[in-house]
Amino acid sequence: MNALFPLTVRKRQIDYRNDIMSTRALCILTDGFEEVEAITPIDLLRRAEVDVTLAAQHHRLTLRGRNGIQVQAQVTLDAVDTELYDLLLIPGGPGVKSLREDARVLEICRAHAANGKLIAAICAAPTVLAEAGLLEGKQFTGHASIKEMLPAMIEDAEVVRDGNIITSRGAGTALPFALELIEYCVSAATARKVAESIHA
Amino acid sequence: MNALFPLTVRKRQIDYRNDIMSTRALCILTDGFEEVEAITPIDLLRRAEVDVTLAAQHHRLTLRGRNGIQVQAQVTLDAVDTELYDLLLIPGGPGVKSLREDARVLEICRAHAANGKLIAAICAAPTVLAEAGLLEGKQFTGHASIKEMLPAMIEDAEVVRDGNIITSRGAGTALPFALELIEYCVSAATARKVAESIHA
Repeated sequence: MNALFPLTVRKRQIDYRNDIMSTRALCILTDGFEEVEAITPIDLLRRAEVDVTLAAQHHRLTLRGRNGIQVQAQVTLDAVDTELYDLLLIPGGPGVKSLREDARVLEICRAHAANGKLIAAICAAPTVLAEAGLLEGKQFTGHASIKEMLPAMIEDAEVVRDGNIITSRGAGTALPFALELIEYCVSAATARKVAESIHA
Repeated sequence: MNALFPLTVRKRQIDYRNDIMSTRALCILTDGFEEVEAITPIDLLRRAEVDVTLAAQHHRLTLRGRNGIQVQAQVTLDAVDTELYDLLLIPGGPGVKSLREDARVLEICRAHAANGKLIAAICAAPTVLAEAGLLEGKQFTGHASIKEMLPAMIEDAEVVRDGNIITSRGAGTALPFALELIEYCVSAATARKVAESIHA
């Protein structure tokens, strides 16, 4: 510790640097989210030093995934300034229905798209983007179970990127999905570095 | 609904059947656990209808992973009858050090091994099994960072199974690790079915 820089000053300097440099991601969680599809991108994005916020759709911060795993959100969606985020991340699971029916969520998706920011959806979550009118003329993928709702879906790709929309198939493709987000938001070199660090 | 079997009786019958048939897994969590390495096997085992219990090493049930994701354990380790479980699952992350230094955890590992039950460890967690004396003469893998502690480690395998010990390399191999556990505990057919359902 350098005596010329007491701890409080050093801390402020570090925070200030992070405020300027960090890419920010917002992950919307609701009961019935698919755990692997949420946790894998959050984990890997944080390893890539992306600042990820877990926001609960409603007022309760403890959310129960489709497989009964309970995860703590950090904030409620109403309390978030969604304009601050570079990436909007929507995991799949049966909770997607509730997101699709939430006018706020659809509006956040549209605002992100209008600002050219990245939107990422996996499994059943591309149906939220479709409901927001963002998949017209776009290439995208998703879980086989949403093919009937979204017949234009590409079926044989793990991850599809079209402009600022990245989609993926399900829990089994959450890892390449997460790495693609890092490549887009940070760099290909960082994505490779994170992949190597976890033996992917 | 069959009128001869009122709901309460039917429910009891279903619970009774599950008590007999379910395979039970115990996952030990502590602060600093690696989120993907815990959540992926728990998620996939539950999809395979394995009854998974999340037990906190100490008294606090809300645990913070190495990437800051907070997950709720269901019970504390002291409150668990560890003899009831068919599979002991230990995720990696910096929290492994605390597990390695916990005599109770080492004793649970030894008791499981002595009873021929399955023990699964990923990333840095094989060091817990080594500390319990269970890796002598066994084939196993783990994260590159533990190679110095465990020089006999196999380095080029995603998942290694030797008898009733299954080990894996890290967050990037959590998916094949989880499927291997299902194959061992349930069946190869169920592992394939779960893999297909998540587009793995």
